This record gives sequence, structure tokens and C-alpha cells, in this order.
Amino acid sequence: MALALVHHPVLRDSAGTVGSTSVTPLNVHDLARAARTYGVAPFYVVTPLPSQQALVSRILSHYREGYGAAANPTRSEALADVVLAGSINEALGDFQRRAGASPLVAGTAARAGEGRLGYAEFAQRIAAGGRPWLLLLGTGWGLAPEAAAHCDIFLGPVRGPGAFNHLSVRTAGAIILDRLFGR
Amino acid sequence: MALALVHHPVLRDSAGTVGSTSVTPLNVHDLARAARTYGVAPFYVVTPLPSQQALVSRILSHYREGYGAAANPTRSEALADVVLAGSINEALGDFQRRAGASPLVAGTAARAGEGRLGYAEFAQRIAAGGRPWLLLLGTGWGLAPEAAAHCDIFLGPVRGPGAFNHLSVRTAGAIILDRLFGR
Repeated sequence: MALALVHHPVLRDSAGTVGSTSVTPLNVHDLARAARTYGVAPFYVVTPLPSQQALVSRILSHYREGYGAAANPTRSEALADVVLAGSINEALGDFQRRAGASPLVAGTAARAGEGRLGYAEFAQRIAAGGRPWLLLLGTGWGLAPEAAAHCDIFLGPVRGPGAFNHLSVRTAGAIILDRLFGR
Repeated sequence: MALALVHHPVLRDSAGTVGSTSVTPLNVHDLARAARTYGVAPFYVVTPLPSQQALVSRILSHYREGYGAAANPTRSEALADVVLAGSINEALGDFQRRAGASPLVAGTAARAGEGRLGYAEFAQRIAAGGRPWLLLLGTGWGLAPEAAAHCDIFLGPVRGPGAFNHLSVRTAGAIILDRLFGR
């Protein structure tokens, strides 16, 4: 399975404005570490904005080739499978070339809705094999309709015993990988 | 159950130097949001350093009473149960007063070791009732021996299929709460 952290097209506010979000470097680190821990690769950082692509490239080169690679080898290892993509389509194309098969796409939603797939059921589908999966994580207020249109299935929201479920995308993404691949 | 993010006494490096770490504001936000999601309260931020206590107090007052409370009500709600403590003992004393019973203490460790309790078994013990539990999360390179000495039990490391398990304390803590209380 592969993971994509989507910065465009996403909802930028609670009113549903569609646009791009900025890259939060800590999200790249945290989700790269989680993806590496749970055997998920590549981890695509999706942004069409040149300034944000430059930011991600600088983080990657610092830890992969620069001083950071020697000073922090586990961080270097975590970032080894991070791939910058300009769009969801570009990530899908790259993943298809690597996997040699057309990927299926799973979306995540913080809200409940019709036809959400349970985590145990999705883990069974992945384990059963077949086409590779790309899991989309939306930043901001979540995936915009244009991004959701790529999805073959949607996972239900990560929840606890109560009604509050405002997790950060870093922690929600790590929890989702743990629910699917944790030991 | 209550949660404590411990900044002292912890290991400051891989050589095992004991000391204090600085507070990372994002850890406070992410773990407060996770604690609120999973019904865990209070969430103690443990630091003996006046400068770090001042930082935490400023974050709390901004979101609880300041502009942030109106601008971001869900963040305000997440931080409602955060309590600043100068030491693990101070957190234990406060939690005992609130719960009306002497708490048991669970430690977390990123490394495997003797006598680690499984997550399902720990969840059953919590559900069975009895004395309240305080879960300690260590920052830096983990809980120092003086902190670990408080623990009645230790949970095993959060792991995926491979050997790499370098998760951030934010994501590891959120995963632990999900393993115990997730739905």
C-alpha cells in the first residue's frame, strides 16, 4: 500500500472553499516515520505549488544527502520513500509504474457517512491481495469533491467513545496505518 | 484514565543522559486532541522548568480565555482538561484528589523488554474497573529510570510489520490511546 498526503484539492475552511493548503514539515516527518513503521511505500506528498514543492525538496535533500543524513540516520531512513507529486493523478501514475498494476484508491473522512468501510474489513481486503491501494489523507478541512472522486472506497472516521474527534492529520493518519498494519 | 507527557526526568540522548526536554507546543495540542477524542482526562504536561511552564500556561490561556477560544472553539475544548504539573508526583497527587483513589501507573517504552503487557490485556484491565490509571509518555529518548520506577506495568512498543519503529511521541501516544479506547 502507498500513502498520499493531499494539499490540493482540499477544503480550506468549514464553508467548503476548495483550494490548496501549505505543507507542514512536521506532517511530512511524522507520516514518513509512520509509513516506514507500517511498511507503507511510497509516501506521496501532493502539492502543485512551486514554493511548497521547493520546501519539501529542501527537507528531503537535507535529511537524505545533507548534514541531516549523518546526524540523524533514522530520520534519513524514514524519508527514503517520500515522493513529491504535483497532483493525485501524478501520484497514481508513479505508483502504477512502480507496482505494475492500476491502483485502487481509498479515501479518509473525519465525518461519518453512507457506505464507509470498516478498518478490519479493509485490512482483510488488502491482505487478500490483488490491485495495490493508495490511501489519500486530506489536509485542511479534508479532501475536496474533485479529490474524493478518485476514491473507490471511503474509510469511516477514527473515533473514540465520545463525539469529539478533532485529531490532527498526523495523528489520524498514523492511527489509520496502525489499525491496518499494527502489531 | 489520565495521561502524562513527561519532560523530566527523561533520557536526553542515546547515551542515556538524564535531564529535561523542552515542551513542543504541537505535542500539547496533538495529545490534548487525542486525549479528548478517547475520553482520557486529565492530560498532565509534566515539566519542572519555569520557562517551559510559562510556555504551556500561555498556550492554555490563549486558547481557553484569549482570542483563540473564540477563533478555534474545538481547540479550546481539546485543551480544557490539560493540567500543568511540576513533577510526576505532583500529577499523581492531583489525579488522586480528583479520582478519590490512589492511581496505578503505566509506562510506555519504544523498546521491547521483559514483562511487557499487551494492549488488549491492558484494555481489559482498565475496563474491569478498580483503581484509576495514569499513563506516562516519555519525551526525548524516553522515561529515565527515576520515572520508570513509578510504573506498576509497562506496555510493549507500538510496532508494525518491520523492525523500524521510530514514531514521534505525538503519533505513538495517539496510537496507544486508539489501541485502548478506539472504536
